[in-house]
Amino acid sequence: MMKEYNVAILGATGAVGMRMVDQLANSTVPVKSLKLLASAHSAGKQMEFKGEKITVEETTNDSFDNVDLVLASAGGAASKKFLPEAVKRGAVCVDNTSAFRMDPEVPLVVPEVNPEQLKNHKGIIANPNCSTIQMVVALAPVFKKYGLKQVIVSTYQAASGAGQSALNEFYQQAKDYLDGKQMSADILPTAGDKKHYPLAFNLLPQIDVFEDEGYTHEEWKMIHETKKIMLNDMNATDLKVTATCVRVPVPISHGESVYFEVEDKNASADDIKKTISDAAGVTLQDDPDHQVYPQPLNAEGKRETFAGRIRPDQENKGCFNMWVVADNLLKGAAWNTVENAERLVDEDLVRVPKDHYQG
Amino acid sequence: MMKEYNVAILGATGAVGMRMVDQLANSTVPVKSLKLLASAHSAGKQMEFKGEKITVEETTNDSFDNVDLVLASAGGAASKKFLPEAVKRGAVCVDNTSAFRMDPEVPLVVPEVNPEQLKNHKGIIANPNCSTIQMVVALAPVFKKYGLKQVIVSTYQAASGAGQSALNEFYQQAKDYLDGKQMSADILPTAGDKKHYPLAFNLLPQIDVFEDEGYTHEEWKMIHETKKIMLNDMNATDLKVTATCVRVPVPISHGESVYFEVEDKNASADDIKKTISDAAGVTLQDDPDHQVYPQPLNAEGKRETFAGRIRPDQENKGCFNMWVVADNLLKGAAWNTVENAERLVDEDLVRVPKDHYQG
Repeated sequence: MMKEYNVAILGATGAVGMRMVDQLANSTVPVKSLKLLASAHSAGKQMEFKGEKITVEETTNDSFDNVDLVLASAGGAASKKFLPEAVKRGAVCVDNTSAFRMDPEVPLVVPEVNPEQLKNHKGIIANPNCSTIQMVVALAPVFKKYGLKQVIVSTYQAASGAGQSALNEFYQQAKDYLDGKQMSADILPTAGDKKHYPLAFNLLPQIDVFEDEGYTHEEWKMIHETKKIMLNDMNATDLKVTATCVRVPVPISHGESVYFEVEDKNASADDIKKTISDAAGVTLQDDPDHQVYPQPLNAEGKRETFAGRIRPDQENKGCFNMWVVADNLLKGAAWNTVENAERLVDEDLVRVPKDHYQG
Repeated sequence: MMKEYNVAILGATGAVGMRMVDQLANSTVPVKSLKLLASAHSAGKQMEFKGEKITVEETTNDSFDNVDLVLASAGGAASKKFLPEAVKRGAVCVDNTSAFRMDPEVPLVVPEVNPEQLKNHKGIIANPNCSTIQMVVALAPVFKKYGLKQVIVSTYQAASGAGQSALNEFYQQAKDYLDGKQMSADILPTAGDKKHYPLAFNLLPQIDVFEDEGYTHEEWKMIHETKKIMLNDMNATDLKVTATCVRVPVPISHGESVYFEVEDKNASADDIKKTISDAAGVTLQDDPDHQVYPQPLNAEGKRETFAGRIRPDQENKGCFNMWVVADNLLKGAAWNTVENAERLVDEDLVRVPKDHYQG
């Protein structure tokens, strides 16, 4: 008889959480029961899973009794508070927040890139940041075949990356602007900072708060997470990464302009295209003659990452420009989480080891 | 007595032309008379200049009789057709189209960067592409002080860069999207290509048509124009440039994520900031502690270029990330044209030489 799992989704009512419910319903994970957990504020709401109505419950430590698998996207603070408790109770957690990503005891996994890390989990597996995921999905096959020395990325990130309330604020701003009204901003660019600016019809070169050396937390995340994912698993000795992260007035799907240098200086743009087109999880959309290239409106609702506009830097052999787009709420969050869960199930890894994560 | 000039604006009714009229009214150019020229379709319209109503006339070769100075922004075909005729009749032309930019007989001038080229004109001075202008305004002081080896730029370009009708189409798309209607596209990404896609709430990694090696015409423009402007005048032997140009759902003002490498490896981010802050035409907006950085909504209507988010690449000495914003219709077009005209007047260069441009 097929093994079935008691699953809990932490943060089920958020922009990502709602999509986790949907992605789980359309996954190969055999679900025996599903608990939908959120804050007291959202408790009592009803959501649907495979035609069945489920009432959202307030999260407590005891919520995780008898749970086998937790998918979490309720913010870093909630993950830090509840996931070690869930692990203690025997649940394996796939966490979409930044709480544990850089913890050396926690594998940071994109199934197309470093699935072999899953077996090292001690109860918690982390999902990378949305902007990191789509970039490594496109770059990993290139890295594996031609080596990768350096990445310089500029992002074009959608409003929904800042959460459902930021997305609502963005839509309201757009309406107000078109009605000739003053736009107001209380959340964007980030709820965690003092000043707020309109995103509609604007560009905000700030995602998350500012940290060392003038870089934002989002930019550091892209730098450090990319290295953790790529270097742990591909025997590379070094990979240089730098990033500029910009919020753009798009609701869903991030764009990224990725400049990269490979080690094999004989690799051509056609080689890169072929390698990406053969890889799992990434679809090549690269046909200038027919104006085919990745666009956010086309990527929305899709699980895969789209890559195109692959061109050689004419003056630096082995260097290329590329344009990458993916649905930040699906591959960048909900789907990557559920995909990790599918792999855990496939490899019979939904079990907490004795030397489990203690925090 | 102060010399006064008979001025003509070619393409006066367009998004840039209208702004040329306004920028000229607020310039130091002494205007004796002003002719507003356009296509037959726009002839008969009335426009205001310094409180005076002027009727737009259809452009013919004879329109340029007795004209001293032409400011042109009616498209490359109109410039190619009319400007050599204007020069023949003794008019000096500042051309905002791409018609003559790469012509070795035509100086390509940004007054803050290479004003010394103006004296070499043979009747025509070209204005660079909007995305090139704001980048070289920010980079030129750095180039002059620390040398520049390489530039990797990703642009975030506003809808108005494709013209007034593209801007109108973009607004209509935004309204339709918010009203839950299907968006339609007949112009964007570029009127000159076959397929058209909505820009509202989307990103289009195509500006102008596709050319060699998978690069668009806009990308080649940035590469070639930057070299022509920077290398002719600064005794540099080489400067590598590569570009990815993306249209974003913003009405006015382009953003640019500019990665650059200087020759002087001891230059710090503070050195770069100080150099830019001391330079003409560029305003430093770089204060992460107070969330100060360039934004399109703030740049709209301003003549200067704004630079910020200047950070060192942590793993490559002498390499930096920077974010640059300017009003593409003003510094990127109308104001740069009028500023060139001001300089021509100041240096008494509004005269066509005997060995003038023949085409």
